[in-house]
Amino acid sequence: MISKPPIGFVGLGAMGFGMATHLVKKGHPVHGFDVFPASVQRFQEAGGIPASSLRESAEGREFYVCMVASAPQAQSVLFGEGGIVQYLAKNATLLLCSTVAASYAKSVASELRSLGRDDIYFIDAPVSGGAKRAADGTLSIMAGGSDDALARGKTLLQTLAAPDKLYLVPGGVGAGSNMKMVHQVLAAIHILGASEAMGLAARLGLDAKTASEGIISSDAWTWMHENRLPRMVEEDWNPGASALTIILKDVGIITTSARENHFPTPLCSTAEQTYLSALSQGYGAKDDSAMVRQYYADPIKNIPCTLSHEQTTSALQLIQDLQVGINLVAAAEAVAFARHLSVDLDQFYQLVSDAAGASQLFITQGLEMIEGRIGEKAPAGPSVDEAMLRLEKVVQTARDLHTPLHLGNAALSVLTMARRSGWGEENRTSVIKAFGI
Amino acid sequence: MISKPPIGFVGLGAMGFGMATHLVKKGHPVHGFDVFPASVQRFQEAGGIPASSLRESAEGREFYVCMVASAPQAQSVLFGEGGIVQYLAKNATLLLCSTVAASYAKSVASELRSLGRDDIYFIDAPVSGGAKRAADGTLSIMAGGSDDALARGKTLLQTLAAPDKLYLVPGGVGAGSNMKMVHQVLAAIHILGASEAMGLAARLGLDAKTASEGIISSDAWTWMHENRLPRMVEEDWNPGASALTIILKDVGIITTSARENHFPTPLCSTAEQTYLSALSQGYGAKDDSAMVRQYYADPIKNIPCTLSHEQTTSALQLIQDLQVGINLVAAAEAVAFARHLSVDLDQFYQLVSDAAGASQLFITQGLEMIEGRIGEKAPAGPSVDEAMLRLEKVVQTARDLHTPLHLGNAALSVLTMARRSGWGEENRTSVIKAFGI
Repeated sequence: MISKPPIGFVGLGAMGFGMATHLVKKGHPVHGFDVFPASVQRFQEAGGIPASSLRESAEGREFYVCMVASAPQAQSVLFGEGGIVQYLAKNATLLLCSTVAASYAKSVASELRSLGRDDIYFIDAPVSGGAKRAADGTLSIMAGGSDDALARGKTLLQTLAAPDKLYLVPGGVGAGSNMKMVHQVLAAIHILGASEAMGLAARLGLDAKTASEGIISSDAWTWMHENRLPRMVEEDWNPGASALTIILKDVGIITTSARENHFPTPLCSTAEQTYLSALSQGYGAKDDSAMVRQYYADPIKNIPCTLSHEQTTSALQLIQDLQVGINLVAAAEAVAFARHLSVDLDQFYQLVSDAAGASQLFITQGLEMIEGRIGEKAPAGPSVDEAMLRLEKVVQTARDLHTPLHLGNAALSVLTMARRSGWGEENRTSVIKAFGI
Repeated sequence: MISKPPIGFVGLGAMGFGMATHLVKKGHPVHGFDVFPASVQRFQEAGGIPASSLRESAEGREFYVCMVASAPQAQSVLFGEGGIVQYLAKNATLLLCSTVAASYAKSVASELRSLGRDDIYFIDAPVSGGAKRAADGTLSIMAGGSDDALARGKTLLQTLAAPDKLYLVPGGVGAGSNMKMVHQVLAAIHILGASEAMGLAARLGLDAKTASEGIISSDAWTWMHENRLPRMVEEDWNPGASALTIILKDVGIITTSARENHFPTPLCSTAEQTYLSALSQGYGAKDDSAMVRQYYADPIKNIPCTLSHEQTTSALQLIQDLQVGINLVAAAEAVAFARHLSVDLDQFYQLVSDAAGASQLFITQGLEMIEGRIGEKAPAGPSVDEAMLRLEKVVQTARDLHTPLHLGNAALSVLTMARRSGWGEENRTSVIKAFGI
């Protein structure tokens, strides 16, 4: 048996710990470091080799994985005092798996050059899929880098990713981060959308189980809704499986990049403001499914099942229409931004359809938006006007109940502006034209 | 001396009490009723004639003023059990001064017809100006009705309004309410905008006095900012001089009407969601200047004056740019909606410029938007792109400080969408084109 190469690893948090221990399971000697000694100890108990410093994790390594939480942390780990770059072996392969802005990933590449370390094969390789898939080695990974770097890193990437979920993204360093970012447009909106729909359901008197089944079984489905719902219902928020601060960091990358590109992201921006409000209320460390508190004050599982069949049908229709309306504009916003950034759109479609950003609407109509078949009268498809009319009804109902609908209102504004621009009678995918596409 | 005609009056709240006692001062016998006996007693002490029932206030009256809080209350007072309509004298003049939707005012007219009481001269006459001006008889009043009705009601209207602030709005019953509504578009946005600007100022470390003077003395000025600031700084919120529920009711009329017209009001909708969030946090009865709490957790008057001159200049620039950006899109939203509703725009400009919806930006550029001189390159005026770039910088700064900027982000989305539609290099008033104008 050929022995597998040693790997240096920094960042043994929820995701990093899973990834590092998975590499251990696959036979790699993994030298793991974290600023929290307890995490290093736990890693040792799981079969890892503890490193007592960044240097110890990196010295002479030919492969290194950086999985810290943010760009500032990455900057410190890579280039700060005792940073790893100076210790890596010549021609080492370095994976940056943190979610960062593409502009930051590019700055790493240029800092490597200016330090005379452009021998290092650098790959920006953000991941998606959560802690469980990290530990199973079945992540989605979006990797950008030179052809040589991707060739050298491929085996390691394949070990961490599910067989069909390693995306080698064309465009060099930064392309992986861009792909992750436009994926997160959908994730960031759907996370709040799930809370918004369930909060409105509660206000309508619809019990959580009926509401959720009604969404999951319909064209209102999103991956996020299905994933977050158990934690939302059980209020399993402490510690958060996916803390509010994580999606807030990701959405900050999106809106910052959108501003740099002078590109509108009205739903992401709306979600961001709502996340920031919750942050100031002390929700930062809680699971992001706690966002339901922004819409409903009590546990949603306490809603009794008392509506008549007719009332239930009518309430379900409203929350489905809400979520479909949000998902429609979210898909348009994501596709439009991806197109503006020259992201490979076929790959984007394939990635999203099978990842945390997926929605039934994106799966069925995203390709239509991507392929530019917008504006055609789709004989069977609903129009922009119809989507608007349905959303108007939901928004009015919520208003009558004094329930905020941050995303529902933002989506309605976009649809109404598309109508005002003369696209009301076109297929609803034409809402993407409101983004100047 | 000719004795003045008796007047029936219902609704002796903050505004109604001032109006009714002013009529007393001017020599009218005023028969006042309110559901709260204490208010009726107080009215009696101020020289009014107490009525113990709606009937008593209305029986045989030739003039009647209804100043209750909402359309449902008005409906009950006018047409409910013991309602006044049945008791009014033949050919009586009836003023509905409550802020209601134009559609409701029209429904009153048709219900009068269907009850065979179309002898009543009905005027929808919403007012603006606050409790003090109500008591001084210097309100702004926007009156809609038939020419005959306006002729009969004019003397009474003139008694309640300031000499140059009685607007006889063309268009019949409902026109007054429409005029008030489009005025409130600006009021609703500026009320939140004042809190948003002062909250950001606090986060930037700018003391309230410097921040406020910097806004009031610049092209960022709004009437609301100047009016609300003392209460915001002193946290003079209980009871609210202008309760959150009041502006929330008005903004609900706006967004409901916008939906009925399929017209976008992205800033009003954003303000509404933020107001609804505050309502669910228990702010309903507090003064609307308490909205600053949505942006900053502590009293803003506690911010010490410690910034350097340079830091102060830079922070002031940011909050001025924020408020100018919001006021710009607010003006566009209001003018666009007014135009869509066929509101008399010259009158609208005149009214707003001298009322609670005024902003320096509206005063200097509103006419340009109204007269359709949009799209011309104004040699000295900033462009849509410049407004967008300034707002981008503010929004990024706020994001770095984890401060939500609900309106700033919504305004930026509209500006960015205008740029994406190709109007970036035009004068900033061209942002109105994003509303399909």
